[in-house]
Order: sequence, then structure tokens, then C-alpha cells
Amino acid sequence: MVYGQDKPGSAYMRLALEAARRAAAAGDVPVGAVLVDATTENIVAAAGNRVEQDMDPTAHAEMIVIREAATLRKDVRLPNCDLYVTLEPCPMCATAISFARIRRVYFGAFDPKGGGVENGPRIFDQSTCHHRPDVYGGIGESDAAALLKEFFAARR
Amino acid sequence: MVYGQDKPGSAYMRLALEAARRAAAAGDVPVGAVLVDATTENIVAAAGNRVEQDMDPTAHAEMIVIREAATLRKDVRLPNCDLYVTLEPCPMCATAISFARIRRVYFGAFDPKGGGVENGPRIFDQSTCHHRPDVYGGIGESDAAALLKEFFAARR
Repeated sequence: MVYGQDKPGSAYMRLALEAARRAAAAGDVPVGAVLVDATTENIVAAAGNRVEQDMDPTAHAEMIVIREAATLRKDVRLPNCDLYVTLEPCPMCATAISFARIRRVYFGAFDPKGGGVENGPRIFDQSTCHHRPDVYGGIGESDAAALLKEFFAARR
Repeated sequence: MVYGQDKPGSAYMRLALEAARRAAAAGDVPVGAVLVDATTENIVAAAGNRVEQDMDPTAHAEMIVIREAATLRKDVRLPNCDLYVTLEPCPMCATAISFARIRRVYFGAFDPKGGGVENGPRIFDQSTCHHRPDVYGGIGESDAAALLKEFFAARR
């Protein structure tokens, strides 16, 4: 993993943060994701968490953009796509990222309590993980973390 | 985990096997799942894999029944539900099972290559896993394994 490097892709991370803010405004945990075609640099899909909005425990931002992109492209594999997400993916999303053959994952805040990439089961480091994306953590970390902190502070 | 115990619930496992057979007939890997209300013993949702049918890398049988049940019940948590699935859940599905607070998981065949419960990341054994269902493995194992073997043999 590469830590906190400021990539030109930080514009995508800002869009992911905007999706996260919209999720919070709708009552969902503020996490946002943007899936980008690495060749054309076009955005394929963008979403915030919709667990509460959709009453769907699997509706994390990463799952939504993967599902949308696969349906759109009529392909269950998205090998030429990069994912920007404001929080370290959980084990569910990390496994879906591997299934979808995503090329690179850029994430914002680390998640010691629920993350599955650099924390917990470290999905991509498992010998049974058949595709490991390149991972860049800590991109826009402070904004993503501040958004989450603010959200949970307001709920206490 | 309890191994291969023949529970009264084996009727549900037979229904899960039927869903798995229908998935195979439609070109998907033959895995099926049934979600049961533990109090009423009614089936809440049943499905086979639909990855290829839906062009959705996340459309494993377990994910489909969890999503359907949560939407149906307008609740992201399903604490009074038991899941019957013909194959050991992968890490994605195991994490979703934990998020949904499923009470018990009965699975058929073990999956050393892709499983995430008794193999690989052993999701429910992670210290960051906040809900651990009771797990019963090897229920109707031979039928579930034979179905998968037959499916992959025909494709080679």
C-alpha cells in the first residue's frame, strides 16, 4: 500500500466526498465512492452509502458503484476501473472489489474498527484472494475522517 | 461450528439445493440460499446465484436473500432469521450476514478455495466482527458438492 500520496486523482476523491456528504444529509453514514475508467478517465458510477435509504444492509457506496458499472457495461469484471472511496473498504466491499477485478483502490480514512483492507481480515492479503488491486490509502484522509466524526458526534 | 448434524431444517436445505439447480440451468454457479424466520418457520426469501444472469458480481444467493428480506421487512437487521445455503459463504457474504445480524447459518459444502467462514479470512472469528451467527457446516454437504462438481466438469 502507498500512503497518503497526493495523486492527480484527488479531484475524484473530492467527488466521492461530495457523495458522502449527500449520504449524511439523507441520514446515512457519510461514505462516498466514485468508479473511474482508467483509460478514458470518465466517471462510470458515483454513489454514497444508501443502507438506511434503501433499507439494504449491503448498500455500501462501493457495492453500489460496482453493481451499477457491471450492469451498465454488461460485464461482471471491471479490470480497467479504479475506485475512489472516502473510507477504507469493509471486508464485504473488499471482496466485491476483488471479484470485480478493480485495478486500483484509492481510499481516504483508515477504519480500524470495520476496515477489511489494512485492518481486520486484510482481504487482499489472504492466500484465497484471487485478485489484488493496487491500494493507495490516506488520500484526502482528514476531510473524510472529519465528515465521519461530525456525523457520529451529531448522533450522540 | 457444529459439523454435519442432520437438523429438522434439512427441508430448507433441500429448497436451497433446488434454487442452486435452477441457477445452474440459467448458467450461474449452482449455489442456493433460503432465509427462514426462526419464530414462524416461514421462508422469507429464497434465491440462487444470479451473477451471470444479472451481470452483477455481488449477486451471490446469500446477498440476494438478505437484500430481499431487508427490503421486505423495512429493516436492515434480521436478527430472528436463519440462513440455509448450499456452499460455505465467501467473505463478502459472511460480512453481509454479520451486518444483517442473521441468527444462524447452516451451510452445505465447505469451500477451501473461496470460503470465508471456516476458510480464508474466517470472517466471524475476526476481532472486528461485531456479530457472529451460530454456524452449522456440512448440512447436505454431499448433494451440494456433487452439484458444483457436475457443473464445473461440464464446463471444462
